[in-house]
Amino acid sequence: MASRTPSPTADRAARTAAAPDRGAPGERPRRRLSVDERREQLIAVALELFSRRPPEEVSIDDIAAAAGASRPLVYHYFPGKQALYEASLRRAGRELSARFEEPMEGPLSERLYRVMGRYLDFVQSHGPGFAALLRGGSVAASAGTSAVIDEVRRAAHDQILSHLAIPAPSPGLRLTVRAWIANAEITSLEWLAERSVPLKELQLHLVQEFVASLTLTAAREPALAAELASFFADERPDGPTGRLVQDLAGLFAVPGILDAVTALAAGTQAREPVGDSSAQAMEGSDGAPAE
Amino acid sequence: MASRTPSPTADRAARTAAAPDRGAPGERPRRRLSVDERREQLIAVALELFSRRPPEEVSIDDIAAAAGASRPLVYHYFPGKQALYEASLRRAGRELSARFEEPMEGPLSERLYRVMGRYLDFVQSHGPGFAALLRGGSVAASAGTSAVIDEVRRAAHDQILSHLAIPAPSPGLRLTVRAWIANAEITSLEWLAERSVPLKELQLHLVQEFVASLTLTAAREPALAAELASFFADERPDGPTGRLVQDLAGLFAVPGILDAVTALAAGTQAREPVGDSSAQAMEGSDGAPAE
Repeated sequence: MASRTPSPTADRAARTAAAPDRGAPGERPRRRLSVDERREQLIAVALELFSRRPPEEVSIDDIAAAAGASRPLVYHYFPGKQALYEASLRRAGRELSARFEEPMEGPLSERLYRVMGRYLDFVQSHGPGFAALLRGGSVAASAGTSAVIDEVRRAAHDQILSHLAIPAPSPGLRLTVRAWIANAEITSLEWLAERSVPLKELQLHLVQEFVASLTLTAAREPALAAELASFFADERPDGPTGRLVQDLAGLFAVPGILDAVTALAAGTQAREPVGDSSAQAMEGSDGAPAE
Repeated sequence: MASRTPSPTADRAARTAAAPDRGAPGERPRRRLSVDERREQLIAVALELFSRRPPEEVSIDDIAAAAGASRPLVYHYFPGKQALYEASLRRAGRELSARFEEPMEGPLSERLYRVMGRYLDFVQSHGPGFAALLRGGSVAASAGTSAVIDEVRRAAHDQILSHLAIPAPSPGLRLTVRAWIANAEITSLEWLAERSVPLKELQLHLVQEFVASLTLTAAREPALAAELASFFADERPDGPTGRLVQDLAGLFAVPGILDAVTALAAGTQAREPVGDSSAQAMEGSDGAPAE
């Protein structure tokens, strides 16, 4: 995929971080790094490399070269590539979780929109190398990497629930939040692979999908419905929710849709069914096994 | 988690499949299995065991015992546990993909509802053992297991698109379908772990979420909006879409929601904003990095 030479960014990270303990050829040490600084520098350099390429395409030599360090020095700090990979993933996880932090101010969908902007920026800059890990097909997957991923998902889940500010979130609401997080993950992974829509559109769509999922959940849970009224009252017409409502209103102008929806709401059907219309829609007949 | 004795179901699989090549103590061989039959029997027995317990809790001895075979016999057919695990996963993948097949008849949401019934039945019976694999934290994850999972996802994606019967699905629509499949996966994994809602509810909610996602996508894509009108016209009031529309209509009866939505549709806002209302909702200010 990528060449094995250090990226310009990794080069820069190495140069700005500090000079090597043992001078690389043609370079003079500026000052000795402390043990902690060196460790942090190695993680930073590794994160740069692992963000851009799958782990099997990054070697300890690549990391040593990009850090301006020797191979034995890297091994002095980390037992091997997997340990360095996991340390850089933990760093990435902390950076990503920090991006979920958002002040409790303004309409809910605008807060989420800002968070998603920061999230997608992270995906764009760190995602390529970690995509295989998130997809579940990485050679570097381990209990350690799973723990980091779970931790980030939990941070996202907790942030969203704290913004919703609902005292006792129902199992249904928690499930909605988790499913939407999975949606955001898979959508951004697909985007990394295909880049078939502009990133700004993705940012808006993901937020609007959250609003739609929340609305669906509220339609089944009366306690949440009252909260939804309050969220909606704070939304602005040019925010994600406002634009969603306007788009849906536009949909009702498409011939047939308003008629069909009105008929369903009234308990009837817009088009005469073809074939055996006597069957119950959701029970008996075939297929669906009982729980 | 589970004990290491074969489950009653695996016992049954072993008894009904055939007798052992070399008689287990106290049992007499009824007839010799052909090579293919024996191989298939071992896979069937392994699938039973791997469906119920994580791979690290299933040994070759367990499989041999449940199949009424000797340990060397199992090794004669499979080089090791991982190979048997992957063979049983491939079998599971084929069984699951077959459940996605659905006649092209009747309202779209009812077809999907039937498919989801069969899918959730599969999850319930085979999911516990494969949950870690789908979550990405399994010791047995490999390129082989990833390929099977990808194949099942692709089968689901292709089935849905064939039912939508849209000649040239847009990137946005494909993304919607993939994201919803991820939603179904994560939701059913959460259900396996917590069983916090009845399975029948999950079946209905997942279908309704698909309808909602499709509607949102159609709200952005005029070509899809015309198709949506046709789908909705075929839906029945007691089907998943009809019930969704009725639930959403019920939501408008909650004080404040109709007012807020009507205001947003008209380009205004229901509640006077607190603090600086002059800021643009989605541009500038803070956070959201440009693409």
